[in-house]
Amino acid sequence: SKIKPVSYGKRGMTLEEDVNDTNNYYLSRGLAVIHKKPTPVQIVQVDYPKRSAAVIKEAYFKQASTTDYNGVYKSHYIDFEAKETKNKTSFPLQNFHLHQINHMKQVMEQGGLAFVIIRFSTKEETYLVHGHSIFKWWNRMECGGRKSVTYEEITKEGYFIKTGLTPRLHYLPIIDQWLLQPVLQKESEE
Amino acid sequence: SKIKPVSYGKRGMTLEEDVNDTNNYYLSRGLAVIHKKPTPVQIVQVDYPKRSAAVIKEAYFKQASTTDYNGVYKSHYIDFEAKETKNKTSFPLQNFHLHQINHMKQVMEQGGLAFVIIRFSTKEETYLVHGHSIFKWWNRMECGGRKSVTYEEITKEGYFIKTGLTPRLHYLPIIDQWLLQPVLQKESEE
Ligand SMILES: [Mg+2]
Ligand SMILES: [Mg+2]
Repeated sequence: SKIKPVSYGKRGMTLEEDVNDTNNYYLSRGLAVIHKKPTPVQIVQVDYPKRSAAVIKEAYFKQASTTDYNGVYKSHYIDFEAKETKNKTSFPLQNFHLHQINHMKQVMEQGGLAFVIIRFSTKEETYLVHGHSIFKWWNRMECGGRKSVTYEEITKEGYFIKTGLTPRLHYLPIIDQWLLQPVLQKESEE
Repeated sequence: SKIKPVSYGKRGMTLEEDVNDTNNYYLSRGLAVIHKKPTPVQIVQVDYPKRSAAVIKEAYFKQASTTDYNGVYKSHYIDFEAKETKNKTSFPLQNFHLHQINHMKQVMEQGGLAFVIIRFSTKEETYLVHGHSIFKWWNRMECGGRKSVTYEEITKEGYFIKTGLTPRLHYLPIIDQWLLQPVLQKESEE
């Protein structure tokens, strides 16, 4: 077995950094209160040294039962997952777990807003995709259809998020559009 | 230093169990989607054994930057902390960190609902206390006043939560009252 120091900065890091940075900006400006949830860990053994901080000596990663981000924006409950892929032509649905999909459905049924921020990292393009679209594609897979979403589908149903300096991923304007027209109407508009 | 297996069930456990149990009940009935956030941990070293799960070998507890629970109820963003005290006559405000108070303020400013569930464990009494009351008492302390809230103050401004079997701590009816009359009016009603 190999013992490694934790290296942040692998798969998915850049998008997560951009989202966290954007949320910090929103928080500091009073625009929204959205936080990333801590990584769920099952703690097995803790060492309590005298006169210093407790050290966790044995713990395991647990599967998250919800999505990574949630919070409040203009009184609305917001809930989302951020996912990155190196694929150029499609986004694999195996990036989600069934319980994350179920959680997003529960959120929508309770009147919250669930969505996913998807980045095609090689193309450097980021899209905000409504939960309804994700459920549709998930359903298609469960009915024997393709196990991924094509790049074209995501560009058609998703909303392109411009990358900038401050904030890096200004996604709230897309939410504003949705709040004004609660039922997703992008397709019918076109 | 002493190495100990993690013992759940110390200080504060019973209230947390009751709240988690209640939230599971709400989730299963489609009444609300409220989850406890994972304990924040700073991971330093991970062992990747061949053919078995990654083991966290060194990690430290981090201070939470938000409250423990949040979610969505009837489209509303809900955010709260659950705290237990063995004191009989007062609840010490040192149970909160400044950043938790600030987080609750940010939530309220964004139109969310922030509150605290406080249990006097020796009396076996549990109260739901609106963020406004907590801010008022926190402010009093910061202006040189008492560092705790008296039991009488909590019974006067808080809402008694009946304990039952299923769910154990049915707190949503109190939220319903608040949603019908957004400005806290308990005092003026009396
Ligand atoms: Mg994730
Ligand atoms: Mg806590």
